[in-house]
Order: sequence, then structure tokens, then C-alpha cells
Amino acid sequence: MADKRILSGMRPTGKLHIGHYVGALENWVKLQHQYQSFYLIADYHVLTTNLDTSDIFDNSIQMLIDWLAAGLDPVKSPMFRQSQIKQHTELHLIFSMLITVNRLERNPTLKDQIRDLNIENVIYGHLGYPVLQTADILLYKGNFVPVGEDQVPHIEISREIARRFNNQYGEVFPEPEPLLTKFARLQGLDGNAKMSKSLGNTILLSDDPDTIKNKLRKAVTDPNKIRKGDPGNPDICLVFSYHKKFNPDEVAEIDKNCRSGALGCVDCKMNCAAKISSFLEPVREKRKYYEDRMNEVLDILHDGENRARAFAEQTMSEVHEKMRLG
Amino acid sequence: MADKRILSGMRPTGKLHIGHYVGALENWVKLQHQYQSFYLIADYHVLTTNLDTSDIFDNSIQMLIDWLAAGLDPVKSPMFRQSQIKQHTELHLIFSMLITVNRLERNPTLKDQIRDLNIENVIYGHLGYPVLQTADILLYKGNFVPVGEDQVPHIEISREIARRFNNQYGEVFPEPEPLLTKFARLQGLDGNAKMSKSLGNTILLSDDPDTIKNKLRKAVTDPNKIRKGDPGNPDICLVFSYHKKFNPDEVAEIDKNCRSGALGCVDCKMNCAAKISSFLEPVREKRKYYEDRMNEVLDILHDGENRARAFAEQTMSEVHEKMRLG
Repeated sequence: MADKRILSGMRPTGKLHIGHYVGALENWVKLQHQYQSFYLIADYHVLTTNLDTSDIFDNSIQMLIDWLAAGLDPVKSPMFRQSQIKQHTELHLIFSMLITVNRLERNPTLKDQIRDLNIENVIYGHLGYPVLQTADILLYKGNFVPVGEDQVPHIEISREIARRFNNQYGEVFPEPEPLLTKFARLQGLDGNAKMSKSLGNTILLSDDPDTIKNKLRKAVTDPNKIRKGDPGNPDICLVFSYHKKFNPDEVAEIDKNCRSGALGCVDCKMNCAAKISSFLEPVREKRKYYEDRMNEVLDILHDGENRARAFAEQTMSEVHEKMRLG
Repeated sequence: MADKRILSGMRPTGKLHIGHYVGALENWVKLQHQYQSFYLIADYHVLTTNLDTSDIFDNSIQMLIDWLAAGLDPVKSPMFRQSQIKQHTELHLIFSMLITVNRLERNPTLKDQIRDLNIENVIYGHLGYPVLQTADILLYKGNFVPVGEDQVPHIEISREIARRFNNQYGEVFPEPEPLLTKFARLQGLDGNAKMSKSLGNTILLSDDPDTIKNKLRKAVTDPNKIRKGDPGNPDICLVFSYHKKFNPDEVAEIDKNCRSGALGCVDCKMNCAAKISSFLEPVREKRKYYEDRMNEVLDILHDGENRARAFAEQTMSEVHEKMRLG
């Protein structure tokens, strides 16, 4: 099993929130023991929807610190920025010759983005997002990619490109498979289905207990439960969904006391805040350690980039040889 | 003037023909004294219309030898393969974020190719051809690009991308301008408007005098001039168009004697073949020199690639710094 590889990546948008943790990081931490892992800071991918790169370095470092704080082991697995390893762009160019415009235009994730972001004119590199992602995965000969449901169509494109390359030039790449993350997405504090920095409805991994309390205080609950004593419906309460994740032992009791009205929202929220805070305490401590040792963080990054680059260059040598490019 | 740079490039399709010479090479030889030149063997561009790369290395070397034989000076200007300088692909990826799919689809040269090659489904990298070409030019901060009329729309795209990058991230790139080649395209031996390897209607720079004679013998002339004595029309005769280029001193006399019928086609063709042969003699000699010294050819290539890579990396450092990619 340990000879199988996974490629995990995130766009660097700054400090991570508990939605990232539940939706991806927690899973990555487990997977690092089962597979040879590569952790990609996908800074070039940011450009597909935002050309402003002024914060991209800082955002990358903050994300890296959160990865380390959450328990990813930089000795076991390299962590690296896409922009520092030219081989990503090299394989991207070659792969761009192996897929049609039509095929990329049929990508349902792109269609969703075009609708959500109200895009009138698609950028060429945005259309090619799954081609770059394919290069990210196959440069490290990734067998598996931990993704959410929405990314599965991209992995299908990666499989097609891998097949087409292997058929045309000879076997180099595995056909990567999605590793679906089981735990559902965390709702945002405002009740939005998605926790997201741009919606301002997040709890950060780095938030201190007071900040978490204040954020929870404003969290949306069952609108029919106005004061303690009113019966509530935990099924539609996002605070209850947080309890399920961060306070599993008390879930049955909270469910009962919410429905009966015995438990008021303020008490329930403060309990939830405390549980999230203590859950995040070791993360916060590790983050503090790295914040005080920025040189160590940069060393980890540069070491990861050197290791990733060496693997990537080995792959590109094979690619050049198979293609007889000299 | 010598501080201005030009980027000249060709796809490596093997040995060059006199159409390449008249349409480009001859001009490049002159330009190398006026500008700092970079000579690109565009091997990745070949992939946009042909995925078979089995001959790409040999074709690149044969083209390089023809360049050297025609008088390009490898000491003055580096000659290099696109596939060996990763910075081309790196800048290509960044530029792919600076132009829309619609803009690329409006490219008239692409429309012509789709029609000529009967393409049903455009390849993603084919649509992005002008983006890669822009990276080729701007990586070397090319001020000018010697091109034919059909390439002018591509240069316009390059200018747009240069402007967009400079506006977004700060001034790095010049806006390149086309240097239109004056001499018209040479017709093929079969009368086709274009001399082209795939049409099998070429005279190679490396053809020996007997081969040139045999090829000329079969050349198409005025169909109404069947035997010596018949009056001919040099205006529609491709052999006459070759005389104009390779035998300018006798053009008036040939024109007169063809029209009167005094000059027969066979004599006219053999005269033309002799003139082309003597024109190509120094090229053939220099080619022989390099064919016998393949190590020197490879040294020239590797030296050119090192010099081009050093320049390219300097440009990419500026790009990364302006974009604050770290």
C-alpha cells in the first residue's frame, strides 16, 4: 500500500478554517500513514479566478503552517508550491495537446463556476484548469487523489489524459482514482451550506477561544426557538451539526434537551464553542511553535520543493524519453 | 539598434527547402547583423497538429544544420529547442491566464488551419498556439518577430498579452512588432502556391545538382507551350518565378525568348536548375562540413540552449518578482 502515491492540494487563500479541516485535512493526516503523499500549494491555480497575486506568498505560508499544525508530517511527505517547480508547467503544456476544447467545455465544475462567479468570458487558463490539475497529479504518478464529489469530473479528465499519453507514447502514468472524503461539508456560521473565507462565515484553525465564543454567539440556529424553553429542531440547526463533529459524546443529550426546550441556544453555543476550542488547542499550540520559528517553516518548504522537484524531474525525463524529444 | 532583439522560429519538419530560404532564412541571415537574435526550434509547436514525435529530434538536427549551412552564425545568436527550456512552458502557463477563450477563437490563422486540415475538434493546446508563441517571443523580450502576413494576427495577440501582464504586474515585457518579410512565397514544383514538404513539391537546400535537374524536369510550366517554338507565357510559369529569384540577370532575355518561342522549356528548366544549384553550392558545402562533424552540431545546440536558458531564467525571475510568487 505504501508504494501507492497520493497527490493532495489546496489553493493558498490564507489561514484555513474548520471546514478545510473536516473536509480535507483530517483525512490527509490519516492518509499520510497509508500512502506516499505529496502536498501541493496550488498557487498557479489561484490565477484562474483571481489575477491579484500580491498576497499569494503570505497566503501560501499561512496555509503551510496550518497544514503542519493540523498534523501533516513534512519529513514523511514533501510540501511545495506549484510555482516553484517548473515541471508542472512543462507537463501541463504537453497534456494540453492531448485533450480537445469541447471536452474541457463539457466539464460540469467549470459550468458551475461560470454560473457562480458570473463569468462572461472564460479565461483560456481557466478552461484548462483540469489539464494543470492532471499535470499536478501525474507528475508525481499519483494513484489516488483525495477529493470531494465536485472534483470527480476533473479526475475523469485526468484518467483520459493519462490513457491518451500512454497509448500514444508508451506507459508512463497511472490512471488516478478519486478517494472520496466521507465527512460532509461543514456549514458556515451564517447557515450557508459552505464555510468559505469569501462569505466571512468561518471559524479559523487559528482562532483563539474568545474569538470562537464570539463567532458562535452570532451563529444562526432554528429561527422558531427564540428563548430558552422554546422547543427547537436540531436537524436544521448548524450549531447542532458542529456538535456532531466536535462533541459526539453529548449529541444524544443535546438533541433531547433542545427538542424539549430545556437547553437554551446560548448555553448550547457556549458548550459548542468550548468543545471546538479544546479540539483546536493542540493545533493552536503547534501553530504558535511554527509562527515563532519562521525560518524552520521556510526550510520545510524549500526542502519539500527540492524533493518534489527531484521526483518531478525524474518523471519528465521519462516523458521526454518516451516522446523522443531529446 | 543592436540592443533590440528578435525571436525567429520554425517548426522542425526536417530538411529545409528553398521556399524556407526565400521566405525566411535569407532574411534572418541579414537580420542577425542588425539585431540580437534568438533562433527557436519550435518542437512543442509541432504537437498542435501532429502527436507523432518519433522523428522530432532528427528533424530538429536537420533543420539546425540547414540554418548553419544557410549562414546563421551560432556564435552571434543562440539556437535552441523549445522542449529543452522549461521556462517557455512556465511563461506559457502564466500567459494562459491573461487571455480569453473567445479572443483565441477569433484568431483567423486558427480558422484557416481548421478549414485546411479539416479539424472537427480543436485541441486545447492548438487553440493556445498563439499563447505559447507569445511566451517564445517575450521570454527573450523580443522587440521584433520576422513573420509572414499570415502570422500578423498572432503578433497582435502577443502585444495584447504583453500589455495585460505589464498593466497587472508592472513593466517587464516589450510589445513585439512584426517584421514583414518582403519576398513573396515560392511556388511549389507542381504549381501549387506553396512549396511544402507534405505536398512533395519542394527543392531542398541539401539537394544535389542531379536531383535538382530531375525535379526541375517535372516542373509545371505554361500548359499551352507544348514544344519548343510554341510561344509561352512566363507570367504563369513557375520556372520563370524561380529565374526571378535565382537568375535575375537573365530574366529579361528569358521573358522575351519564352514569349517568342525561341526558348524551349527543357533548356529553360536546365538553365534554371544550374542556377539554383550554383546558388545552393556554398550551402551544400557548409552542410557537408556539419554532417561530417555531428558532435560540433550538438555542441552548438547545447551551447545555444544554455545561453537561451540563462536569458529565459533571468526573465522568469523578473516575472516571479513582479507577481510576488516568491
